[in-house]
Amino acid sequence: MPSSPVPLPALGLIGFGAFGRLVAQHLASLFSLRVHDPFAPDSAFAAAGIERCDLDVAAACPVVILATPVSTLASVVRDIAPHLSPGALVLDVGSVKVRPAEIMRAGLPAGIDIVATHPLFGPQSAREGLRGLKIAVCPVRGGRARRVGAFLRHALGLTVILTTPEAHDREAAAVQGLTHLIAKVLVAMEPLPTRMTTRSFDLVMQAVGMVRHDAPEVYHAIERENPFAAEVRRRFFDLAAQMDGELGESAGFEGKTRLRA
Amino acid sequence: MPSSPVPLPALGLIGFGAFGRLVAQHLASLFSLRVHDPFAPDSAFAAAGIERCDLDVAAACPVVILATPVSTLASVVRDIAPHLSPGALVLDVGSVKVRPAEIMRAGLPAGIDIVATHPLFGPQSAREGLRGLKIAVCPVRGGRARRVGAFLRHALGLTVILTTPEAHDREAAAVQGLTHLIAKVLVAMEPLPTRMTTRSFDLVMQAVGMVRHDAPEVYHAIERENPFAAEVRRRFFDLAAQMDGELGESAGFEGKTRLRA
Repeated sequence: MPSSPVPLPALGLIGFGAFGRLVAQHLASLFSLRVHDPFAPDSAFAAAGIERCDLDVAAACPVVILATPVSTLASVVRDIAPHLSPGALVLDVGSVKVRPAEIMRAGLPAGIDIVATHPLFGPQSAREGLRGLKIAVCPVRGGRARRVGAFLRHALGLTVILTTPEAHDREAAAVQGLTHLIAKVLVAMEPLPTRMTTRSFDLVMQAVGMVRHDAPEVYHAIERENPFAAEVRRRFFDLAAQMDGELGESAGFEGKTRLRA
Repeated sequence: MPSSPVPLPALGLIGFGAFGRLVAQHLASLFSLRVHDPFAPDSAFAAAGIERCDLDVAAACPVVILATPVSTLASVVRDIAPHLSPGALVLDVGSVKVRPAEIMRAGLPAGIDIVATHPLFGPQSAREGLRGLKIAVCPVRGGRARRVGAFLRHALGLTVILTTPEAHDREAAAVQGLTHLIAKVLVAMEPLPTRMTTRSFDLVMQAVGMVRHDAPEVYHAIERENPFAAEVRRRFFDLAAQMDGELGESAGFEGKTRLRA
């Protein structure tokens, strides 16, 4: 990419884990990135050709993206708050939205605009590019969510779903809660057959392959920090137990086949 | 297809449900089909351009395919036995193989060759043709399984897996047992989100779409007549309950957020 005739706008990125690196990879040609992550290895910075920044430098940018685990968001918000520039825009990228939106609204100074986002993809599903992948965008404070959505659509080719944190978490509880739970159970059952497989089993295992390398924090956020996830799990288990019971009764399994859940 | 210069060999097909129709569709140009199914509607025969036959006519063919539910196989075997021609070849297409192989070996006269098969596909997955789809082929009696495999490979383009009934059922218990169980639970949870979906969730739902219209008999055969299916379900439920327990215990956060896994 030829260097821009005008200086690129600065963008602060807090967190350089798997998802932070994906963000950097796709924004590096559009912004001058200031990346802060004291825990990411030097090799990750070297591979991306990016220099490690101090927190105050990254946080002082006009746009700041928080790409840290949801479980650490409250402390990150506390840490960056004193360094933010007036009128800055802060975005997160967590897999749940109700709690992160609350944390950012409560912890970020009044003059700061806030947009909560959830890219519905990860390094695995984005391997062949971002075009057509989905991202949920929730206005939290200030009026910049639509403009963020337009940028994501036009500059990155993403399909933007404008929604609220609660509506997001209700849908994500089913979409991600079920996928990750099923995947985790199937991975625990491995080795599973690879030869005598059906097309539908192959599809399920392809889905498993897309989430099996997600950081444990992603699974924890999805299952634990989504206020609707436990309810979805409960319905899944109740229905599964019911079906197992129906099968067990007529197969003569001495009535011990019921799920304890 | 131009009519053959020599008469096509006769093939008896017992059962004209969803799978029997798929068999007929792909074998009609290679065999003169004699189809028996007193329960299939006239419209199904009319749509296929096939005349309904009596049992004795279909059973007297040199090759006979049994495409009835596994649960009725014993009575079908009893009914056809008196009408079979000496040296005939009988095949089944059920989703499990240990019990059908036993039933056929016990119920079919000594001079009859037997090959148990399980096409690892259905009308949904075969919509775009058979090429590359898999079929398990198990020798049961007589030496014709390899020749059957060669025919399926060359004439129909199938990928043939030569195996034993027990090895088949062990793998199928995981492959189909898990897919159908998960699909049945997810269908029962509908409506599920269709908008805010991830690629992995889309794949899982695509898998669900491939089996959701299977006849209930297919589900019952897979879950109930496979001697290893209950054990696979048990492992799935135990692991799922364990993961749910781990999530539930620490759902109150407060420093217990580490998964023991």
